[in-house]
Amino acid sequence: MKVSARNVFRGKISAVVNGAVNAEIELMTAGGDRIVAIVTEDSVKLLGLAVGQEALAYVKAPWVMVLTGESDVRFSARNQLRGKVVALVPGTVNTEVGIQLPGGTVVHAMLTNEAIADMELKLGADATALIKASHVILGVPS
Amino acid sequence: MKVSARNVFRGKISAVVNGAVNAEIELMTAGGDRIVAIVTEDSVKLLGLAVGQEALAYVKAPWVMVLTGESDVRFSARNQLRGKVVALVPGTVNTEVGIQLPGGTVVHAMLTNEAIADMELKLGADATALIKASHVILGVPS
Amino acid sequence: MKVSARNVFRGKISAVVNGAVNAEIELMTAGGDRIVAIVTEDSVKLLGLAVGQEALAYVKAPWVMVLTGESDVRFSARNQLRGKVVALVPGTVNTEVGIQLPGGTVVHAMLTNEAIADMELKLGADATALIKASHVILGVPS
Repeated sequence: MKVSARNVFRGKISAVVNGAVNAEIELMTAGGDRIVAIVTEDSVKLLGLAVGQEALAYVKAPWVMVLTGESDVRFSARNQLRGKVVALVPGTVNTEVGIQLPGGTVVHAMLTNEAIADMELKLGADATALIKASHVILGVPS
Repeated sequence: MKVSARNVFRGKISAVVNGAVNAEIELMTAGGDRIVAIVTEDSVKLLGLAVGQEALAYVKAPWVMVLTGESDVRFSARNQLRGKVVALVPGTVNTEVGIQLPGGTVVHAMLTNEAIADMELKLGADATALIKASHVILGVPS
Repeated sequence: MKVSARNVFRGKISAVVNGAVNAEIELMTAGGDRIVAIVTEDSVKLLGLAVGQEALAYVKAPWVMVLTGESDVRFSARNQLRGKVVALVPGTVNTEVGIQLPGGTVVHAMLTNEAIADMELKLGADATALIKASHVILGVPS
Protein backbone atom coordinates (compact mmCIF):
# COMPACT_ATOMS: atom_id res chain seq x y z
CA MET A 1 0.00 0.00 0.00
CA LYS A 2 1.15 3.53 -0.79
CA VAL A 3 -0.27 6.70 0.72
CA SER A 4 -0.23 10.23 -0.70
CA ALA A 5 0.13 11.94 2.68
CA ARG A 6 3.59 13.51 2.90
CA ASN A 7 3.71 12.97 6.65
CA VAL A 8 3.64 9.49 8.15
CA PHE A 9 4.57 9.01 11.81
CA ARG A 10 5.22 5.32 12.53
CA GLY A 11 5.37 4.24 16.16
CA LYS A 12 3.46 2.95 19.13
CA ILE A 13 0.47 4.39 20.94
CA SER A 14 1.82 5.98 24.14
CA ALA A 15 -1.42 7.41 25.58
CA VAL A 16 -5.19 7.13 25.12
CA VAL A 17 -7.48 9.71 26.73
CA ASN A 18 -11.11 8.69 26.31
CA GLY A 19 -13.92 11.22 26.09
CA ALA A 20 -17.68 11.15 25.59
CA VAL A 21 -17.49 11.34 21.79
CA ASN A 22 -13.83 11.61 20.84
CA ALA A 23 -10.59 10.17 22.14
CA GLU A 24 -7.13 11.71 22.12
CA ILE A 25 -4.46 9.26 20.98
CA GLU A 26 -0.73 9.95 21.40
CA LEU A 27 1.71 8.09 19.18
CA MET A 28 5.46 7.99 19.83
CA THR A 29 8.00 7.14 17.12
CA ALA A 30 11.07 4.96 17.75
CA GLY A 31 13.11 8.19 17.85
CA GLY A 32 10.86 9.73 20.50
CA ASP A 33 8.84 12.17 18.38
CA ARG A 34 5.21 12.45 19.48
CA ILE A 35 2.00 13.30 17.70
CA VAL A 36 -1.53 13.54 19.08
CA ALA A 37 -4.64 12.63 17.06
CA ILE A 38 -8.32 13.11 17.88
CA VAL A 39 -10.51 10.29 16.58
CA THR A 40 -14.05 9.21 17.41
CA GLU A 41 -14.62 6.65 20.17
CA ASP A 42 -16.10 4.50 17.36
CA SER A 43 -12.69 4.44 15.68
CA VAL A 44 -11.03 3.54 18.99
CA LYS A 45 -13.26 0.44 19.15
CA LEU A 46 -13.11 -0.47 15.46
CA LEU A 47 -9.32 -0.18 15.27
CA GLY A 48 -8.76 -1.52 18.78
CA LEU A 49 -6.57 1.44 19.73
CA ALA A 50 -4.68 0.83 22.98
CA VAL A 51 -1.40 1.81 24.61
CA GLY A 52 1.55 -0.17 23.24
CA GLN A 53 -0.08 -0.94 19.90
CA GLU A 54 1.75 -0.18 16.67
CA ALA A 55 0.12 2.61 14.72
CA LEU A 56 0.65 5.21 12.02
CA ALA A 57 -0.38 8.83 11.93
CA TYR A 58 -0.95 10.55 8.58
CA VAL A 59 -0.99 14.29 7.97
CA LYS A 60 -1.19 16.01 4.58
CA ALA A 61 1.38 18.76 3.98
CA PRO A 62 -1.22 21.54 3.37
CA TRP A 63 -2.57 21.00 6.92
CA VAL A 64 0.71 21.96 8.60
CA MET A 65 1.25 25.55 9.78
CA VAL A 66 4.82 26.74 10.41
CA LEU A 67 6.25 29.19 12.97
CA THR A 68 9.70 30.74 13.23
CA GLY A 69 11.36 33.05 15.75
CA GLU A 70 10.64 33.54 19.43
CA SER A 71 7.07 32.49 20.10
CA ASP A 72 5.14 35.36 21.63
CA VAL A 73 1.81 33.60 21.18
CA ARG A 74 0.44 30.44 22.80
CA PHE A 75 -1.63 28.29 20.44
CA SER A 76 -4.67 26.04 20.71
CA ALA A 77 -3.13 23.44 18.36
CA ARG A 78 -2.31 20.24 20.23
CA ASN A 79 0.81 19.44 18.17
CA GLN A 80 3.61 22.01 18.31
CA LEU A 81 6.63 20.22 16.88
CA ARG A 82 10.00 22.00 17.06
CA GLY A 83 12.81 21.19 14.66
CA LYS A 84 15.14 22.46 11.96
CA VAL A 85 14.40 23.27 8.32
CA VAL A 86 16.12 20.56 6.26
CA ALA A 87 14.33 20.95 2.91
CA LEU A 88 12.81 23.71 0.77
CA VAL A 89 11.30 22.63 -2.57
CA PRO A 90 9.93 25.71 -4.37
CA GLY A 91 7.17 25.78 -6.99
CA THR A 92 5.49 28.73 -8.70
CA VAL A 93 2.94 29.41 -5.92
CA ASN A 94 3.81 26.95 -3.13
CA THR A 95 6.99 25.66 -1.50
CA GLU A 96 7.29 22.37 0.35
CA VAL A 97 9.20 22.75 3.61
CA GLY A 98 10.78 19.86 5.52
CA ILE A 99 11.30 20.28 9.29
CA GLN A 100 13.34 17.61 11.06
CA LEU A 101 12.31 16.86 14.65
CA PRO A 102 14.81 15.82 17.38
CA GLY A 103 13.76 12.16 17.03
CA GLY A 104 14.51 12.15 13.30
CA THR A 105 11.01 12.50 11.86
CA VAL A 106 10.76 15.02 9.02
CA VAL A 107 7.50 16.99 8.96
CA HIS A 108 6.52 18.33 5.55
CA ALA A 109 4.47 21.51 5.19
CA MET A 110 3.10 23.13 2.05
CA LEU A 111 3.39 26.90 2.31
CA THR A 112 2.79 29.74 -0.14
CA ASN A 113 5.92 31.36 -1.57
CA GLU A 114 4.67 34.64 -0.06
CA ALA A 115 4.76 33.04 3.40
CA ILE A 116 8.28 31.70 2.76
CA ALA A 117 9.45 35.22 1.81
CA ASP A 118 7.65 36.89 4.77
CA MET A 119 9.23 34.42 7.19
CA GLU A 120 12.68 34.50 5.52
CA LEU A 121 12.67 30.74 5.91
CA LYS A 122 16.15 29.26 5.30
CA LEU A 123 17.76 25.81 5.49
CA GLY A 124 19.05 25.15 9.00
CA ALA A 125 16.66 27.62 10.67
CA ASP A 126 14.67 26.63 13.77
CA ALA A 127 10.98 26.18 13.01
CA THR A 128 7.87 24.77 14.64
CA ALA A 129 5.19 22.75 12.84
CA LEU A 130 1.65 23.26 14.18
CA ILE A 131 -0.86 20.48 13.50
CA LYS A 132 -4.40 20.33 14.86
CA ALA A 133 -5.04 16.93 16.48
CA SER A 134 -8.34 16.72 14.58
CA HIS A 135 -6.41 16.83 11.28
CA VAL A 136 -4.45 13.66 11.95
CA ILE A 137 -5.66 10.36 10.43
CA LEU A 138 -4.66 7.26 12.38
CA GLY A 139 -3.99 3.82 10.93
CA VAL A 140 -3.15 0.42 12.40
CA PRO A 141 -1.43 -2.45 10.58
CA SER A 142 -4.09 -5.04 9.69
CA MET B 1 -24.15 30.26 -7.00
CA LYS B 2 -20.73 28.83 -7.78
CA VAL B 3 -18.47 27.08 -5.30
CA SER B 4 -14.69 26.68 -5.40
CA ALA B 5 -14.67 23.23 -3.80
CA ARG B 6 -13.58 20.69 -6.41
CA ASN B 7 -15.73 17.98 -4.81
CA VAL B 8 -19.49 18.31 -4.63
CA PHE B 9 -21.57 15.26 -3.77
CA ARG B 10 -25.24 15.88 -4.61
CA GLY B 11 -27.81 13.48 -3.19
CA LYS B 12 -30.17 12.71 -0.37
CA ILE B 13 -29.48 12.23 3.31
CA SER B 14 -29.54 8.47 3.94
CA ALA B 15 -28.68 8.43 7.67
CA VAL B 16 -28.49 10.78 10.65
CA VAL B 17 -26.74 9.64 13.84
CA ASN B 18 -27.23 12.20 16.60
CA GLY B 19 -24.68 12.76 19.35
CA ALA B 20 -24.30 15.06 22.34
CA VAL B 21 -22.48 17.79 20.40
CA ASN B 22 -22.04 16.54 16.84
CA ALA B 23 -24.10 14.50 14.41
CA GLU B 24 -22.93 12.16 11.69
CA ILE B 25 -24.81 12.70 8.42
CA GLU B 26 -24.61 10.23 5.53
CA LEU B 27 -25.46 11.44 2.04
CA MET B 28 -26.07 9.10 -0.90
CA THR B 29 -25.81 10.25 -4.52
CA ALA B 30 -28.24 9.11 -7.24
CA GLY B 31 -25.53 6.69 -8.42
CA GLY B 32 -25.18 5.17 -4.95
CA ASP B 33 -21.91 6.80 -3.79
CA ARG B 34 -21.91 7.68 -0.09
CA ILE B 35 -20.15 10.30 1.98
CA VAL B 36 -20.34 10.93 5.72
CA ALA B 37 -20.05 14.39 7.30
CA ILE B 38 -19.75 15.41 10.93
CA VAL B 39 -21.56 18.64 11.73
CA THR B 40 -22.67 20.23 14.99
CA GLU B 41 -26.14 19.47 16.34
CA ASP B 42 -26.74 23.23 15.91
CA SER B 43 -26.25 22.82 12.17
CA VAL B 44 -28.63 19.84 12.16
CA LYS B 45 -31.34 22.10 13.62
CA LEU B 46 -30.53 25.23 11.59
CA LEU B 47 -30.43 23.34 8.28
CA GLY B 48 -33.24 20.94 9.22
CA LEU B 49 -31.12 17.91 8.29
CA ALA B 50 -33.22 14.73 8.11
CA VAL B 51 -33.28 11.44 6.22
CA GLY B 52 -34.61 11.82 2.70
CA GLN B 53 -33.75 15.49 2.37
CA GLU B 54 -31.77 16.73 -0.62
CA ALA B 55 -28.30 17.89 0.37
CA LEU B 56 -24.83 18.62 -0.95
CA ALA B 57 -21.48 17.70 0.52
CA TYR B 58 -18.43 19.85 -0.27
CA VAL B 59 -14.80 18.80 0.08
CA LYS B 60 -11.77 20.77 -1.08
CA ALA B 61 -9.21 18.81 -3.10
CA PRO B 62 -6.30 19.45 -0.64
CA TRP B 63 -8.31 17.69 2.10
CA VAL B 64 -8.34 14.36 0.25
CA MET B 65 -5.66 11.71 0.96
CA VAL B 66 -5.10 8.94 -1.61
CA LEU B 67 -4.12 5.27 -1.22
CA THR B 68 -3.09 2.70 -3.80
CA GLY B 69 -2.24 -0.99 -3.65
CA GLU B 70 -3.39 -3.63 -1.21
CA SER B 71 -4.40 -1.93 2.01
CA ASP B 72 -2.35 -3.32 4.88
CA VAL B 73 -3.50 -0.58 7.25
CA ARG B 74 -6.96 0.16 8.68
CA PHE B 75 -7.72 3.88 8.97
CA SER B 76 -9.65 6.10 11.35
CA ALA B 77 -11.02 8.21 8.47
CA ARG B 78 -14.77 7.70 8.09
CA ASN B 79 -14.78 8.04 4.29
CA GLN B 80 -12.73 5.48 2.38
CA LEU B 81 -13.92 5.76 -1.21
CA ARG B 82 -12.60 3.21 -3.72
CA GLY B 83 -12.48 3.95 -7.42
CA LYS B 84 -10.29 4.29 -10.50
CA VAL B 85 -7.93 7.11 -11.48
CA VAL B 86 -9.57 8.94 -14.40
CA ALA B 87 -7.63 12.22 -14.39
CA LEU B 88 -4.13 13.47 -13.64
CA VAL B 89 -3.52 17.22 -14.10
CA PRO B 90 0.11 18.02 -13.24
CA GLY B 91 1.52 21.37 -12.10
CA THR B 92 5.02 22.29 -10.97
CA VAL B 93 4.58 21.17 -7.34
CA ASN B 94 1.10 19.62 -7.18
CA THR B 95 -1.00 17.34 -9.35
CA GLU B 96 -4.78 17.15 -9.30
CA VAL B 97 -5.99 13.54 -9.34
CA GLY B 98 -9.53 12.47 -10.27
CA ILE B 99 -10.82 9.17 -8.85
CA GLN B 100 -14.14 7.89 -10.21
CA LEU B 101 -16.30 5.97 -7.74
CA PRO B 102 -18.60 3.08 -8.77
CA GLY B 103 -21.66 5.37 -8.66
CA GLY B 104 -20.06 7.83 -11.09
CA THR B 105 -18.90 10.55 -8.70
CA VAL B 106 -15.37 11.80 -9.42
CA VAL B 107 -13.39 12.67 -6.30
CA HIS B 108 -10.63 15.22 -6.84
CA ALA B 109 -7.48 15.20 -4.71
CA MET B 110 -4.55 17.63 -4.75
CA LEU B 111 -1.30 15.73 -4.23
CA THR B 112 2.36 16.72 -4.41
CA ASN B 113 4.23 15.56 -7.50
CA GLU B 114 6.59 13.70 -5.15
CA ALA B 115 3.63 11.68 -3.84
CA ILE B 116 2.47 10.95 -7.40
CA ALA B 117 5.97 9.65 -8.28
CA ASP B 118 6.28 7.61 -5.03
CA MET B 119 2.89 6.01 -5.64
CA GLU B 120 3.45 5.52 -9.41
CA LEU B 121 -0.09 6.76 -9.87
CA LYS B 122 -1.36 6.07 -13.41
CA LEU B 123 -4.62 6.54 -15.29
CA GLY B 124 -6.84 3.48 -14.83
CA ALA B 125 -5.22 2.42 -11.56
CA ASP B 126 -7.31 1.46 -8.53
CA ALA B 127 -7.15 4.09 -5.80
CA THR B 128 -8.93 5.00 -2.57
CA ALA B 129 -9.78 8.54 -1.46
CA LEU B 130 -9.67 9.08 2.31
CA ILE B 131 -11.70 11.99 3.68
CA LYS B 132 -12.20 12.80 7.36
CA ALA B 133 -15.92 13.28 8.10
CA SER B 134 -15.07 16.46 10.03
CA HIS B 135 -13.63 17.97 6.83
CA VAL B 136 -16.90 17.77 4.89
CA ILE B 137 -19.11 20.89 4.62
CA LEU B 138 -22.82 20.17 4.16
CA GLY B 139 -25.30 22.33 2.29
CA VAL B 140 -29.04 22.20 1.69
CA PRO B 141 -30.94 23.90 -1.16
CA SER B 142 -32.66 26.98 0.27
CA MET C 1 7.55 35.25 15.74
CA LYS C 2 6.39 34.70 12.16
CA VAL C 3 3.60 32.38 11.09
CA SER C 4 3.04 30.73 7.71
CA ALA C 5 -0.75 30.92 7.85
CA ARG C 6 -1.95 33.40 5.24
CA ASN C 7 -4.93 34.37 7.38
CA VAL C 8 -4.47 36.01 10.76
CA PHE C 9 -7.46 37.65 12.44
CA ARG C 10 -6.29 39.86 15.33
CA GLY C 11 -8.89 41.05 17.81
CA LYS C 12 -10.70 40.38 21.05
CA ILE C 13 -12.78 37.43 22.11
CA SER C 14 -16.42 38.51 21.82
CA ALA C 15 -18.16 35.26 22.83
CA VAL C 16 -17.38 31.91 24.46
CA VAL C 17 -19.91 29.08 24.26
CA ASN C 18 -18.81 26.17 26.43
CA GLY C 19 -19.68 22.57 25.64
CA ALA C 20 -18.97 19.15 27.10
CA VAL C 21 -15.79 18.60 25.08
CA ASN C 22 -15.33 21.61 22.82
CA ALA C 23 -15.96 25.33 23.11
CA GLU C 24 -16.93 27.79 20.41
CA ILE C 25 -14.90 30.99 20.56
CA GLU C 26 -15.86 34.12 18.61
CA LEU C 27 -13.18 36.71 17.90
CA MET C 28 -13.94 40.22 16.65
CA THR C 29 -11.34 42.38 14.88
CA ALA C 30 -11.00 46.14 15.50
CA GLY C 31 -12.82 46.66 12.18
CA GLY C 32 -15.74 44.47 13.26
CA ASP C 33 -14.99 41.29 11.28
CA ARG C 34 -15.83 38.10 13.18
CA ILE C 35 -14.50 34.57 13.09
CA VAL C 36 -15.59 31.56 15.11
CA ALA C 37 -13.19 28.79 16.21
CA ILE C 38 -13.88 25.44 17.84
CA VAL C 39 -11.23 24.42 20.36
CA THR C 40 -11.18 21.83 23.13
CA GLU C 41 -12.25 22.83 26.64
CA ASP C 42 -8.66 21.91 27.61
CA SER C 43 -7.39 24.71 25.35
CA VAL C 44 -9.92 27.14 26.88
CA LYS C 45 -8.37 26.45 30.31
CA LEU C 46 -4.73 26.31 29.19
CA LEU C 47 -4.96 29.55 27.21
CA GLY C 48 -7.36 31.21 29.66
CA LEU C 49 -9.78 32.11 26.87
CA ALA C 50 -12.43 34.61 28.05
CA VAL C 51 -14.54 37.42 26.65
CA GLY C 52 -12.55 40.64 26.22
CA GLN C 53 -9.18 38.93 25.93
CA GLU C 54 -6.88 39.71 23.02
CA ALA C 55 -6.50 36.77 20.67
CA LEU C 56 -5.48 35.75 17.19
CA ALA C 57 -7.15 33.31 14.82
CA TYR C 58 -5.07 31.54 12.19
CA VAL C 59 -6.42 29.86 9.05
CA LYS C 60 -4.35 28.36 6.25
CA ALA C 61 -5.40 29.42 2.73
CA PRO C 62 -6.14 25.86 1.48
CA TRP C 63 -8.85 25.52 4.18
CA VAL C 64 -10.94 28.36 2.76
CA MET C 65 -13.76 27.54 0.33
CA VAL C 66 -15.13 30.36 -1.84
CA LEU C 67 -18.66 31.08 -3.13
CA THR C 68 -19.86 33.59 -5.70
CA GLY C 69 -23.30 34.57 -6.97
CA GLU C 70 -26.67 34.36 -5.29
CA SER C 71 -26.50 31.73 -2.60
CA ASP C 72 -29.15 29.07 -3.22
CA VAL C 73 -27.66 26.72 -0.64
CA ARG C 74 -27.39 27.05 3.16
CA PHE C 75 -24.14 25.68 4.58
CA SER C 76 -23.06 23.92 7.76
CA ALA C 77 -19.82 25.94 7.93
CA ARG C 78 -19.87 28.31 10.91
CA ASN C 79 -17.90 31.07 9.17
CA GLN C 80 -19.50 32.57 6.05
CA LEU C 81 -17.58 35.77 5.41
CA ARG C 82 -18.82 38.09 2.64
CA GLY C 83 -16.52 40.52 0.91
CA LYS C 84 -14.98 41.62 -2.37
CA VAL C 85 -12.19 40.02 -4.40
CA VAL C 86 -9.15 42.31 -4.05
CA ALA C 87 -6.34 39.96 -5.16
CA LEU C 88 -5.79 37.12 -7.63
CA VAL C 89 -2.28 35.62 -7.73
CA PRO C 90 -2.19 32.82 -10.32
CA GLY C 91 0.20 29.84 -10.41
CA THR C 92 0.28 26.86 -12.76
CA VAL C 93 -2.29 24.80 -10.83
CA ASN C 94 -3.51 27.05 -8.01
CA THR C 95 -4.46 30.70 -7.62
CA GLU C 96 -4.42 32.62 -4.37
CA VAL C 97 -7.53 34.75 -3.95
CA GLY C 98 -7.84 37.68 -1.52
CA ILE C 99 -11.34 38.62 -0.30
CA GLN C 100 -11.67 41.83 1.70
CA LEU C 101 -14.33 41.84 4.41
CA PRO C 102 -16.32 44.97 5.40
CA GLY C 103 -14.11 45.46 8.49
CA GLY C 104 -10.94 45.49 6.40
CA THR C 105 -9.64 41.97 6.99
CA VAL C 106 -8.44 40.24 3.81
CA VAL C 107 -9.17 36.50 3.73
CA HIS C 108 -6.82 34.49 1.51
CA ALA C 109 -7.99 31.30 -0.19
CA MET C 110 -6.01 28.87 -2.31
CA LEU C 111 -8.15 27.63 -5.21
CA THR C 112 -7.42 25.52 -8.27
CA ASN C 113 -7.21 27.41 -11.55
CA GLU C 114 -10.07 25.21 -12.79
CA ALA C 115 -12.26 26.54 -9.96
CA ILE C 116 -11.25 30.13 -10.78
CA ALA C 117 -12.25 29.59 -14.43
CA ASP C 118 -15.54 27.82 -13.52
CA MET C 119 -16.46 30.64 -11.16
CA GLU C 120 -15.30 33.41 -13.52
CA LEU C 121 -13.74 35.02 -10.46
CA LYS C 122 -12.71 38.63 -11.16
CA LEU C 123 -11.22 41.49 -9.15
CA GLY C 124 -14.01 43.53 -7.55
CA ALA C 125 -16.53 40.66 -7.58
CA ASP C 126 -18.58 39.81 -4.50
CA ALA C 127 -17.47 36.56 -2.90
CA THR C 128 -17.99 34.63 0.32
CA ALA C 129 -15.25 32.75 2.18
CA LEU C 130 -16.44 29.60 3.99
CA ILE C 131 -14.31 28.37 6.87
CA LYS C 132 -15.17 25.49 9.20
CA ALA C 133 -14.78 26.57 12.82
CA SER C 134 -12.79 23.39 13.49
CA HIS C 135 -10.15 24.53 10.96
CA VAL C 136 -9.27 27.68 12.91
CA ILE C 137 -6.25 27.70 15.26
CA LEU C 138 -6.47 30.20 18.11
CA GLY C 139 -3.56 31.98 19.76
CA VAL C 140 -3.18 34.36 22.69
CA PRO C 141 -0.29 36.78 23.27
CA SER C 142 1.96 35.30 25.98
